[in-house]
Amino acid sequence: MKLNENYRELKESYLFSEVAKKVNAFQAANPDKKVIRMGIGDVTLPLCESVIKALHNAVDEMGRAETFRGYGPEQGYDFLRSAIKDHYAQNGVELDIDEIFVSDGAKSDIGNITDLFSKDNTVLIPDPVYPVYVDTNTMNGRKIIYMDGTAENGFLPMPDKNVKVDIIYLCSPNNPTGACYTKAQLEEWVEYALENNALILFDSAYESFVSDEGLPRSIYSVEDAKKCAIEFCSLSKTAGFTGLRCGYTIVPKTIESGGMRLNKMWLRRQTTKFNGVPYIVQRAACAVFGADGISETRRMVAHYKQNAQIIAKTMQETGTRFFGGINSPYIWFECPFGMDSWEFFDFMLEKIAVVGTPGAGFGKNGNNFFRLTAFNSKENTTEAMERFKTLC
Amino acid sequence: MKLNENYRELKESYLFSEVAKKVNAFQAANPDKKVIRMGIGDVTLPLCESVIKALHNAVDEMGRAETFRGYGPEQGYDFLRSAIKDHYAQNGVELDIDEIFVSDGAKSDIGNITDLFSKDNTVLIPDPVYPVYVDTNTMNGRKIIYMDGTAENGFLPMPDKNVKVDIIYLCSPNNPTGACYTKAQLEEWVEYALENNALILFDSAYESFVSDEGLPRSIYSVEDAKKCAIEFCSLSKTAGFTGLRCGYTIVPKTIESGGMRLNKMWLRRQTTKFNGVPYIVQRAACAVFGADGISETRRMVAHYKQNAQIIAKTMQETGTRFFGGINSPYIWFECPFGMDSWEFFDFMLEKIAVVGTPGAGFGKNGNNFFRLTAFNSKENTTEAMERFKTLC
Repeated sequence: MKLNENYRELKESYLFSEVAKKVNAFQAANPDKKVIRMGIGDVTLPLCESVIKALHNAVDEMGRAETFRGYGPEQGYDFLRSAIKDHYAQNGVELDIDEIFVSDGAKSDIGNITDLFSKDNTVLIPDPVYPVYVDTNTMNGRKIIYMDGTAENGFLPMPDKNVKVDIIYLCSPNNPTGACYTKAQLEEWVEYALENNALILFDSAYESFVSDEGLPRSIYSVEDAKKCAIEFCSLSKTAGFTGLRCGYTIVPKTIESGGMRLNKMWLRRQTTKFNGVPYIVQRAACAVFGADGISETRRMVAHYKQNAQIIAKTMQETGTRFFGGINSPYIWFECPFGMDSWEFFDFMLEKIAVVGTPGAGFGKNGNNFFRLTAFNSKENTTEAMERFKTLC
Repeated sequence: MKLNENYRELKESYLFSEVAKKVNAFQAANPDKKVIRMGIGDVTLPLCESVIKALHNAVDEMGRAETFRGYGPEQGYDFLRSAIKDHYAQNGVELDIDEIFVSDGAKSDIGNITDLFSKDNTVLIPDPVYPVYVDTNTMNGRKIIYMDGTAENGFLPMPDKNVKVDIIYLCSPNNPTGACYTKAQLEEWVEYALENNALILFDSAYESFVSDEGLPRSIYSVEDAKKCAIEFCSLSKTAGFTGLRCGYTIVPKTIESGGMRLNKMWLRRQTTKFNGVPYIVQRAACAVFGADGISETRRMVAHYKQNAQIIAKTMQETGTRFFGGINSPYIWFECPFGMDSWEFFDFMLEKIAVVGTPGAGFGKNGNNFFRLTAFNSKENTTEAMERFKTLC
């Protein structure tokens, strides 16, 4: 057989394994020290009551012949798609139920959507960014152009009319920077996409952290986005589903090229290469959108946002320049003392036993930045920030 | 953007929608008649007790902070991979734990594995066959060669040394024909693959239906297969997981080409484009391999196999030529009266209100054959076969 040679071009990511190695070595050398981990973007609170209840009920259904469910529709059960449709409607976005595809998570769909595009597309990706956008296009051998997220543009790069691209990745609220596009900024992106017959792949996995009323939680808050944007969302951060696995992708029926409709292509892709999300997980996801689920998951998000505020406040008090932390669980700050991000990682671990993520892991523009996450207990977050103050 | 033009080459499958349409029309015209459905290959028994118990326990774990699990390893938790390793060992196959990848089902992995191959491979696919092999390679624009499964070769085509191919799909016990390769036959396939530097993609989703001790349940029962074969398996039919979604894929470390190792590539693919199977589902899957799980799921399989025997016996009594039904839940029979498979579908529905699947839906060699499945109650199966006898 002949293998996909593009895999040779993939860069090995040693980011989290390198972090783990360093932390383990430190802990072995300092067994008495309490290391506080604020590195990985994984939730810490257990699933909420409504979700647990829905799971138990659905498990019972699966154990009885009369209510057992085998193969379900690959694109998701209508009870869940309706709930997602209503969720969007509450945010002022009208969707057709056939535009909603339930999946096992945004990461899968963001990777798999590349199946629908030919190799001959130029792809625009922000730097710094979640590494999956780059890796999945590298696997297909596509040309990638980077756009710089910098302190100057608030890590929110805007379109350059002199650069022509076919596919654009946007993530807002952003991972890793926590920056969030305004509606006016997204309007500019939609305008650029329509002018260039380009497609926007919009990652809104962190939408539930948006609290400023004026900020968009979906790219479809820009009306014409339905002609040029696919949106990926997830319950991982909204409801702590990182270990339960459920997301959803919106593929509007109005996007087409050369007589081929993206919505129809994605349906064909999913029905051919996917068999749907477990019934019990879909019931759990549906509970997230119920009255109790909404209030319970909002409390979870509020807990993390409180931690983010504690971190942000510390950054302000210590005069550290930072981004995010308001509409995001991430705080992205400039490394103090002119250090690069790996130097600062070592310094912070050694001096105060706090672990974060070096910005260099997200692209060259992260070299002098550092990511802390709000996914922790209030006690740990407070203690870590007390320790941080002693550094500065 | 430029779309993947290969999607234009995909044939729309109207098989199951056409079946549903005809059945609905018949039922509307004959509201008093009891239609017995033996068409779709979906299980009917509820999940077994051990699985339900494991699910409830794992759900409780997810509801408590101390035992909550977020992101897991993309390739599956070690507790489940160990159980799968032991399952193989019991069948005489030694695997390294890193060769085992847990997934949300065989269909996903069989589709996604094509990511690892360049477009320039010639693919050999049996006809008749499960349509996913053809469709996923068509999506990538690969050249497909078909090998004929016929009554003469027992629907078990063997290698033709004059035909050179790079990738070979085998499914045994077979869907739709129920035919099962012997070890000697698989040895021939492994020999062919090694001589031609070809890769075998072996679909063993129905392995739990193999009851003849002499028949292989895994391609790795042939020793050299570890140098040339990937195996896909699933708990869908073994334990009724069609709605719970868990499978596993074996990618031996010993397969490489041009210095690239397939095992490492698949790990990279899965860690980049997949986020693992829900923790609760992995606990359920693990229960299938426990002592209670084994005996409970064997009873489920025995139930379906009893139905298969009822069908097979009817075929014998009516002098209908058939395949499968012994080591498989499928019975594949020649349409009586020289009818083609759609004619027979209409005839059987009209005369005895029994639904099956026309063989034409699986390829040209299925034109005069018909598939019935054992996934039903004993009562329905018996009644359907009593009705069948009146036809002949």
